[in-house]
Amino acid sequence: MKIDILTIFPEMFVGPFGESIVKRAIDQKQVDIKIHDLREWTEDKHRSVDAPPYGGGAGMVMRVDVIDKAVSSLRSKETKVILLETKGKIYSQNEAVKMSKEKHLILIAGHYEGIDHRVHEEIADEVYSIGEYVLTGGELPVMVVVDSIVRLIPGVLGNPESLSEESYSEPGKREYPQYTRPSEYKGWKVPEVLLEGNHAEIEKWRKEKSGKR
Amino acid sequence: MKIDILTIFPEMFVGPFGESIVKRAIDQKQVDIKIHDLREWTEDKHRSVDAPPYGGGAGMVMRVDVIDKAVSSLRSKETKVILLETKGKIYSQNEAVKMSKEKHLILIAGHYEGIDHRVHEEIADEVYSIGEYVLTGGELPVMVVVDSIVRLIPGVLGNPESLSEESYSEPGKREYPQYTRPSEYKGWKVPEVLLEGNHAEIEKWRKEKSGKR
Repeated sequence: MKIDILTIFPEMFVGPFGESIVKRAIDQKQVDIKIHDLREWTEDKHRSVDAPPYGGGAGMVMRVDVIDKAVSSLRSKETKVILLETKGKIYSQNEAVKMSKEKHLILIAGHYEGIDHRVHEEIADEVYSIGEYVLTGGELPVMVVVDSIVRLIPGVLGNPESLSEESYSEPGKREYPQYTRPSEYKGWKVPEVLLEGNHAEIEKWRKEKSGKR
Repeated sequence: MKIDILTIFPEMFVGPFGESIVKRAIDQKQVDIKIHDLREWTEDKHRSVDAPPYGGGAGMVMRVDVIDKAVSSLRSKETKVILLETKGKIYSQNEAVKMSKEKHLILIAGHYEGIDHRVHEEIADEVYSIGEYVLTGGELPVMVVVDSIVRLIPGVLGNPESLSEESYSEPGKREYPQYTRPSEYKGWKVPEVLLEGNHAEIEKWRKEKSGKR
């Protein structure tokens, strides 16, 4: 899978994509991620990517022309263009599973609340919000989406069993509580059943504890 | 406000907290953020923070004793301890607003699906999930929570008007579409009303477009 990311803060991605599962997937060439500075597609001397909103109001709005030039230069027939902003559909595991099967994604991170609406209407194939809260930019949402997708690419997680056991793979289902050593700490004890080694009983207990929301 | 973050990937935070609004808030001493490596609180020579789950299963589980030692050494009477994991309550703007008024937060990032449940039950004051999707770690969720909180601290956003106009400040309300120059691009036009300068008409149009979900 190939992922192109458009942002005005390329430096933000250095840490998150330089550690953990995403780094491993990049190193093993299971995913090819490129971070692009949107300013590369500006033509004025100030390299401006935003301007005040028509009709007045607070904040700056990201320009449709700059974003369109960037997307046009990167897209092919197989590309899905994803915009992250507060007005989008709430992102969930179903979308992560769907996107993990795509060949090429372009993810657009911008001012989270101020992107020219023509990007939403004319350029993006999908518009998502990662949750019902306001953030300063689309960069963290793009990282969240990339992380949720990359771990689903076959071979990326060392242990595929991790995928089948996890929460949200069946929507509405919650994963059972997990415990590890020490079995007792400050009087806080691990449930007896998990220590006794009766696998049928352990399965039963875990099923009971995997409640619906 | 003081924020302590517990993580096994401290390097991940360098980019996201080195740019944008969060960096400005740190520079202007509106928030004091410290990233702590959980391994500082381990005592064995391998500095292990996790172990296999009791009862069997995939993946590693973060240990309650290591997390408890870290939290105990950092907490005071005014501290709220927040754990990010898939089993948590879905995080929303209401929680961001509430937390932005706290004096001291400890945010725990761990394996997103494998944290000893005693951390949830005995140590954390609140447990949140940033959305119904699975991530590899709690680091991105911690960054999302920090970003959503820090921008609400009085004085952090240059223009307080931005806060009052935004989506999610009234739950269920969606912000109106925004546009900026060019007014026409590839035949895609900005709605006439925004270009005509009649403020009453602009207000009316925006109200209409701020639909419910």
